[in-house]
Amino acid sequence: MESDAAKNNNVTFFNGYVSRKDREKLHGHKGAVVWFTGLSASGKSTVAHLIEKELHRRGCFTYVLDGDNVRFGLCSDLTFSPEDRKENIRRIGEMVKLFVDAGIIVLTAFISPFRKDRQKVRSLLSDGRFLEVYMNCPAEVCADRDQKGIYEKAGAGIIKEFTGISSPYEPPEDPELVIDSTKVDAGEAAQRVINLIEQSEII
Amino acid sequence: MESDAAKNNNVTFFNGYVSRKDREKLHGHKGAVVWFTGLSASGKSTVAHLIEKELHRRGCFTYVLDGDNVRFGLCSDLTFSPEDRKENIRRIGEMVKLFVDAGIIVLTAFISPFRKDRQKVRSLLSDGRFLEVYMNCPAEVCADRDQKGIYEKAGAGIIKEFTGISSPYEPPEDPELVIDSTKVDAGEAAQRVINLIEQSEII
Repeated sequence: MESDAAKNNNVTFFNGYVSRKDREKLHGHKGAVVWFTGLSASGKSTVAHLIEKELHRRGCFTYVLDGDNVRFGLCSDLTFSPEDRKENIRRIGEMVKLFVDAGIIVLTAFISPFRKDRQKVRSLLSDGRFLEVYMNCPAEVCADRDQKGIYEKAGAGIIKEFTGISSPYEPPEDPELVIDSTKVDAGEAAQRVINLIEQSEII
Repeated sequence: MESDAAKNNNVTFFNGYVSRKDREKLHGHKGAVVWFTGLSASGKSTVAHLIEKELHRRGCFTYVLDGDNVRFGLCSDLTFSPEDRKENIRRIGEMVKLFVDAGIIVLTAFISPFRKDRQKVRSLLSDGRFLEVYMNCPAEVCADRDQKGIYEKAGAGIIKEFTGISSPYEPPEDPELVIDSTKVDAGEAAQRVINLIEQSEII
């Protein structure tokens, strides 16, 4: 690649900043977050990854944040107490804000049980950049689906403070989308979210 | 845009994940971090933004992380005590890891005074994805340049635990690049870092 462009352009690019708008122009779409909320095993992560696959196929710049890449990293110091859950979502929200500013379509798959915490993340982002998707699925159905045996352990008290069993879940009051995951399969759910992303003029 | 691709592709894209490699292919370059370290007013942020501007011009996907977008957000709960500085860099490092996984060229501009903390971030990333750039500039020169008056306040004891004055700075032992910012201007510094990025085969 050329290597003296920066030098030659010193004067013009000095003190120049690249804005979100500039990045979005380059990417060909807006930055935004699709924020999934719902119980463990309600399908958040599966659907998020399906959407990522499809958006990537269309040439969009995407990233999935979930327990796998956050709970062992950025938030590895936090427990599942109510205070730590709040701090967990706060940090994720602040990180998401930067990803969106970077022009990425972020898909987050966290239980995020408390309404107030989700609301706070929404308030960090501009209008229309926070799309809340509620994966509505009763705890009994989630427990039936659960392949990791965590609902069983929670029921037996081996896992403490488990959302839907021994820790509360507050469903969203006015989410952008509700998916009844007892009736809609993952592929159809992904399709509905992609429709939402299109209608929101993100892509 | 087409809206039924996801549905039609159910079977093929179910359980399919988008990898860093996939994203890098789409972006046309690798994900990596250029990690600036050095005293306050040594030029980290200025040079980082210059590089971003030039990389963006070349069609690269970039993002600058600095005090402006991190200290008031993700790390707003932290002070400048040694323990909190450590936690500050830990969180930034974990976030950077995700940005790099997302295929972005991240430029970070934090004092990051402790060798061990920077080393830990390096260890989070694959070989060749962490480029440490030491902005070498004596505290006296930084103080002369300082337009915010923070060195004066630190000297007078109004600001406590100020790196280079009342809190230690540990220079890197084996950084990818050292810039003597008493001799090299910001444009030339940016050019040298871009050369490094090219030599490291990031772009």
